Amino acid sequence: MTNAFTLLKTSPTGPRAGVLRTPHGDVPTPVFMPVATQGTVKAVSPEELKGLGASIVLSNTYHLYLRPGLEVMRRAGGLHRFMAWDGPILTDSGGFQVLSLTFLRRLSDEGVGFRSHIDGGSEHMLTPELAIEIQETLGSDIMMALDECPAFGGDFEAIKAATERTHRWAERCLARRRNTGQALFGIVQGGTFPELRRDSARFIAGLPFDGYALGGLSVGEPKPVTYAAIEQCAPLLPEDRPRYLMGVGSPEDFFECVSRGIDMFDSVLPTRVARNGAIFTTEGREDIGNARFKEMMGPIEPGCDCYTCRTFSAAYLHHLFRCQELLAYRLATIHNLRFIVRLMQDIRRAILDGSFDGLKESFLRRYRPADAEVAASQKQKWMEAQKRKRSALEAEG
Amino acid sequence: MTNAFTLLKTSPTGPRAGVLRTPHGDVPTPVFMPVATQGTVKAVSPEELKGLGASIVLSNTYHLYLRPGLEVMRRAGGLHRFMAWDGPILTDSGGFQVLSLTFLRRLSDEGVGFRSHIDGGSEHMLTPELAIEIQETLGSDIMMALDECPAFGGDFEAIKAATERTHRWAERCLARRRNTGQALFGIVQGGTFPELRRDSARFIAGLPFDGYALGGLSVGEPKPVTYAAIEQCAPLLPEDRPRYLMGVGSPEDFFECVSRGIDMFDSVLPTRVARNGAIFTTEGREDIGNARFKEMMGPIEPGCDCYTCRTFSAAYLHHLFRCQELLAYRLATIHNLRFIVRLMQDIRRAILDGSFDGLKESFLRRYRPADAEVAASQKQKWMEAQKRKRSALEAEG
Repeated sequence: MTNAFTLLKTSPTGPRAGVLRTPHGDVPTPVFMPVATQGTVKAVSPEELKGLGASIVLSNTYHLYLRPGLEVMRRAGGLHRFMAWDGPILTDSGGFQVLSLTFLRRLSDEGVGFRSHIDGGSEHMLTPELAIEIQETLGSDIMMALDECPAFGGDFEAIKAATERTHRWAERCLARRRNTGQALFGIVQGGTFPELRRDSARFIAGLPFDGYALGGLSVGEPKPVTYAAIEQCAPLLPEDRPRYLMGVGSPEDFFECVSRGIDMFDSVLPTRVARNGAIFTTEGREDIGNARFKEMMGPIEPGCDCYTCRTFSAAYLHHLFRCQELLAYRLATIHNLRFIVRLMQDIRRAILDGSFDGLKESFLRRYRPADAEVAASQKQKWMEAQKRKRSALEAEG
Repeated sequence: MTNAFTLLKTSPTGPRAGVLRTPHGDVPTPVFMPVATQGTVKAVSPEELKGLGASIVLSNTYHLYLRPGLEVMRRAGGLHRFMAWDGPILTDSGGFQVLSLTFLRRLSDEGVGFRSHIDGGSEHMLTPELAIEIQETLGSDIMMALDECPAFGGDFEAIKAATERTHRWAERCLARRRNTGQALFGIVQGGTFPELRRDSARFIAGLPFDGYALGGLSVGEPKPVTYAAIEQCAPLLPEDRPRYLMGVGSPEDFFECVSRGIDMFDSVLPTRVARNGAIFTTEGREDIGNARFKEMMGPIEPGCDCYTCRTFSAAYLHHLFRCQELLAYRLATIHNLRFIVRLMQDIRRAILDGSFDGLKESFLRRYRPADAEVAASQKQKWMEAQKRKRSALEAEG
């Protein structure tokens, strides 16, 4: 794989704008990747994704490996054809899901043995080699190396061991990849220990990856810790390769992380909160279920160019959510994704014309981030729902 | 209201093809009307409805009156603008829903007093006059008179009383309507008693309605009874006005009822079964959840021109249903509605070119109707779910 990343504007410690070339098209950076966990960005069609300006989506190796499975993927001719998305796809390696969704895990240097969270019983072993094999079968444009993403709050020795294992797995992923034209990104770990972060960045940067990701962040640590970790790592990564911060998706974070040299983001946040009726606007997130929207005949965000705002009133969206109509989830998802994609387009334009600091300042002055408590309680609710699902499966298994 | 119905081909006791002109466009008949209960055809957008060839939708007076309510409808400028559908809309009168969804009903000549099934508490009184006022506020193209739709299995005297009340209410609806350019259809009742059906058809036909509906059918009676009721009524209705059979939506029924002179149909069947994964094909309904679709890389119905079949494999739709992904419900709904709309287009073309009997014969020879037991058990499941919802509300109230 040759370097398919072109920087149009760069700075050793500041924002960058570039283009990442992939077999399925160009990705202007910085970029946000909507998440298509099971081969569909929840509630929207491929045409709607194209229409709102998404240039790349992220899909989950772990989920697609378990269901529909590799045999179906082979017959379909890969994930692009299966999900009818002809744009670029990045696939994660499955490491994060194996460690957060499964139970009865057995972690060793060989890989992670686990039981499926879907059928609650079947046993599997995810190794670095299998992670690559799955992603080659999926035919994604960008593959991720298998990493061990430790939970936030582990002690130094535990994080150090996980980080070193991640390094050994990174080498095995590189050794296993075939010449398929797919890019392969390495993942820096190291938890919130600056020394481990830097060691990991140096080690991973020394391997011939096509891009470099920061993993193990946005898993519960305070935001200043996330930002500090980026500052520790970014200067150690090759300047001419894309840098991807995994799992970050809130508007205020984009500015802070782009400022520190990040090029790529993904998160379920904009789509998940949309399905709960939380709508992004330039002033912050609004709850469409709030009674004040009941008679609002204008769009939820005046001036927004998304399909939802061009077509329907806030009152209609409020009504759909109150009635739990399926169309509600789609319309809110389209709006939130368009909001995020457009914001990233604005950020990129500002980087190119030198006005990034001004845009950052004016956006953040107006935008009221979701209250940390609200955000934490939403995350808590979701994690409890996941736990309930898992218990139900265990009970059945 | 002048007669806006033009028959292009007719027969006193056989199939007819025509065009119904409305303020929001022409409706070629025979026609199937997808149901937009709460101002949205579940899971699809207005553009998708247009794209699959729907020429008119049906919305529910009862639901929209309770939520979002008339004040919102007035501010929105009517239902068309509220739901962003610029084609024709027929609204039912609310009578059927009041009698099937609410509890603590008090039925009198004045109207139906009931408690909302939504907030479980608020009290309302639906009168013929209010039914018209609501529908004028909604601004539908076709309004329905308020009727009393008795449950299947009532005795002669009970059905007779309900039918006579329906007649008195029909006159009050006509007296109350204003000159809004909206059509108003009367409803024939009479249960399954041929004599009452004929009396009702004669009475309603004698009133100056713009169209005539058969109500109180498809509520649990055997199909031959439904067909017989049509045969009893159709010859008594004015030939130059549209005839609408309420609540019928299965492919085999279209042929049988069009054969007997019906022009318009509505039913939640195609959309409701779609959300359960039941897919219409020319050979009958298929369950997309069946394992035999897991690796089927062709469309669910080869040759189908719907968005779903043109874009995705049966295997992908199977996967989405297995994962309970929101996109599944949309894709199945689009297919089923397109199947029904296209079938009705084929029927109309066949009537016009004189080949209806051949089409009917060849379709019914191939098409395997949903097993009566399957259909009954599906209906039963749905009714039980409704009952559970209602009990939950009563418990809260």
